[in-house]
Amino acid sequence: MNKALDPALAAGNRREFAAYAARHFRWQCEGGVATITLNRPERKNPLTFDSYAELRDLFRSLKYATDVHAVVLAGAGENFCSGGDVHEIIGPLIELPAPELLMFTRMTGDLVLAMRQCPQPIVAAIDGVCAGAGAILAMASDLRLGTARSKTAFLFNRVGLAGCDMGACALLPRLVGQGRASELLYTGRSLGGEEGERWGFFNRLCAPEDLLGEAQALAAQLVAGPTFANGITKTMLHQEWAMTVEQAIEAEAQAQAICMLTQDFKRAYEAFAAKRKPVFEGN
Amino acid sequence: MNKALDPALAAGNRREFAAYAARHFRWQCEGGVATITLNRPERKNPLTFDSYAELRDLFRSLKYATDVHAVVLAGAGENFCSGGDVHEIIGPLIELPAPELLMFTRMTGDLVLAMRQCPQPIVAAIDGVCAGAGAILAMASDLRLGTARSKTAFLFNRVGLAGCDMGACALLPRLVGQGRASELLYTGRSLGGEEGERWGFFNRLCAPEDLLGEAQALAAQLVAGPTFANGITKTMLHQEWAMTVEQAIEAEAQAQAICMLTQDFKRAYEAFAAKRKPVFEGN
Amino acid sequence: MNKALDPALAAGNRREFAAYAARHFRWQCEGGVATITLNRPERKNPLTFDSYAELRDLFRSLKYATDVHAVVLAGAGENFCSGGDVHEIIGPLIELPAPELLMFTRMTGDLVLAMRQCPQPIVAAIDGVCAGAGAILAMASDLRLGTARSKTAFLFNRVGLAGCDMGACALLPRLVGQGRASELLYTGRSLGGEEGERWGFFNRLCAPEDLLGEAQALAAQLVAGPTFANGITKTMLHQEWAMTVEQAIEAEAQAQAICMLTQDFKRAYEAFAAKRKPVFEGN
Repeated sequence: MNKALDPALAAGNRREFAAYAARHFRWQCEGGVATITLNRPERKNPLTFDSYAELRDLFRSLKYATDVHAVVLAGAGENFCSGGDVHEIIGPLIELPAPELLMFTRMTGDLVLAMRQCPQPIVAAIDGVCAGAGAILAMASDLRLGTARSKTAFLFNRVGLAGCDMGACALLPRLVGQGRASELLYTGRSLGGEEGERWGFFNRLCAPEDLLGEAQALAAQLVAGPTFANGITKTMLHQEWAMTVEQAIEAEAQAQAICMLTQDFKRAYEAFAAKRKPVFEGN
Repeated sequence: MNKALDPALAAGNRREFAAYAARHFRWQCEGGVATITLNRPERKNPLTFDSYAELRDLFRSLKYATDVHAVVLAGAGENFCSGGDVHEIIGPLIELPAPELLMFTRMTGDLVLAMRQCPQPIVAAIDGVCAGAGAILAMASDLRLGTARSKTAFLFNRVGLAGCDMGACALLPRLVGQGRASELLYTGRSLGGEEGERWGFFNRLCAPEDLLGEAQALAAQLVAGPTFANGITKTMLHQEWAMTVEQAIEAEAQAQAICMLTQDFKRAYEAFAAKRKPVFEGN
Repeated sequence: MNKALDPALAAGNRREFAAYAARHFRWQCEGGVATITLNRPERKNPLTFDSYAELRDLFRSLKYATDVHAVVLAGAGENFCSGGDVHEIIGPLIELPAPELLMFTRMTGDLVLAMRQCPQPIVAAIDGVCAGAGAILAMASDLRLGTARSKTAFLFNRVGLAGCDMGACALLPRLVGQGRASELLYTGRSLGGEEGERWGFFNRLCAPEDLLGEAQALAAQLVAGPTFANGITKTMLHQEWAMTVEQAIEAEAQAQAICMLTQDFKRAYEAFAAKRKPVFEGN
């Protein structure tokens, strides 16, 4: 066994999250899959200053988690997330001076960054309303399962703001193309489920009653794979965003060479030779 | 009222364009929506040295316009634009030495840049022929409405040139994906309306007789929104083209903080609280 | 005639490839179209250390070919390519130390780079299995014709590796969008032919029996065009990958000015004036 991977010997902040006590959303952890459920269904699960900050801190610390290998992000009660709460966020922002506004926009951006920088693939389970900052969280996830009735709206311009919120002008064009992204950001109109699947925003649509289960099953499927390598896939998708092809190819040569040194690579080969299914251990 | 936004006090070149006297195309300005109509229908609205230069200068100066908040770009008589005129442009180019050719290709590229750098969203209304430089102007617009019978062709290789004209090799892959862009640029084949909608080149298709009206209505819808914020959306879609995700998120934190200091943001909040529709003023 | 283009006077390594004697695949050259056929059909045409190296060297030297203006990449016997051979590549890799692994991943990456850096457009003809490194070669091509029954799988994570192989995390998102690319790379699942066409991975689908012929006809069509300009199109699609819009527009102004100095540009104009079809000569 590779001693460097023994949690007892590794960097001091490696720790388990199974018993994480969430304060501003629900947290459930089973078989390596953590499920975060935004949980104020009577308001369609808005974000607040507190939930933003807790999500940011949680995703940052997941980088060192020993027992979470994929995350499902969902909303309670038939909606995903209605975005920044009008009363608890937008109201106070109206009064703030520039430096404090920048502190707020940096904090929300930091949540997106933390979601992109943790090694766990994030599967968003999107039903009903997915609006404003909620639509950004969907986009900051790696995979998106939706429902036909879901409505995703980058409605920033409806509240007097620009479409450039939390990275939207960078992320959305890469998901659905520059022309479709422009339309969604300029108009704030809702993207329906079927249209979203056709455009590549959703990986697939599910029946509402199956949505959470299918998202968790997809996450469990990833967790059964080589989770260290999955984390490298995520890192490289992020790192290569603005590289030249030459830079990307060299970066991947290095990253894949690391993965070829893992036991999981050897396990897969040995399983193949023995005509059985490999059992990966994430190292 | 914010004094810095009073046109009388602002940078000297802020001015009105309602009475702009176009020489090489038609210009109409109503309710903040300017409509530019390429107007040599008997030749399918080709571009000439003169119309290129006037369009470039006009889009550059629109950056300082006080009365234009969205632009519609259209062609007269059932065609959008047939590109650089064979007799008035291609013929003379054949004779030019390298430095003057570069001056020409830089001028045409400057038109694309001016379209991307002005704050007004540009809606292209595309019927019939949309070819060569005409296809580039479509692509340099923010939103594209087409017709089923429209034919968009990047036909540079048909005239012995490369597909890399006025930014095509950068812009087209971001609109329709690298593989589809490659096909259009290598073969010069026509992209039909329905295929163009399916690929995300067109935001939607309209009946030919409704096309201009729908483009103007879409532009008017944007003008009824927070126009300062719309301009920031456009700026950031452009700025973030080749940024890393990290850079994009910081850039958006700054840009959105500026928008949160506008009266339009406050107007939207107050309207929401009063359960009425906000009236934006673009400041 | 332009003397600088006379092969006898040009850089010493310009040479003909019609009689190239391939050792690890089939090579056929006719009318400017070279066809490379991976040819171990009983194993679904896997790659080996030898075929990787020969392909890399060949694509590198094609930069100086005088008689090859487009390449078709195909597989023998109803499959495209099954990727790195399990016995001849994966087995040995298991035993290698880090520096030698990096030498291997750099070599495979160099093949992709050589394919992107040669001036000839590459048309991949994809039937049956297109897996692992085979899927990468498909993606490193410029155009992809598929069949409904083709199965394209980035199955790196099935063998314990990351999806970042030979540039996949850079190339695939630009072909099919970030969300769909993420799914294919995280899960390793097969992409079917029809889905692949819908996503823009395939330019079009062909009947299996027509596939090679259609790929060669498409390549021949490109060869009948202005081949110097085609090569510049390919170069600029590659060069502009991570440029800003401003940089791309200046780069294209320079590149297109060079093309306007070619005889092919003049030939097209003269043919147009004489109402006949131009005959391009690639200079």
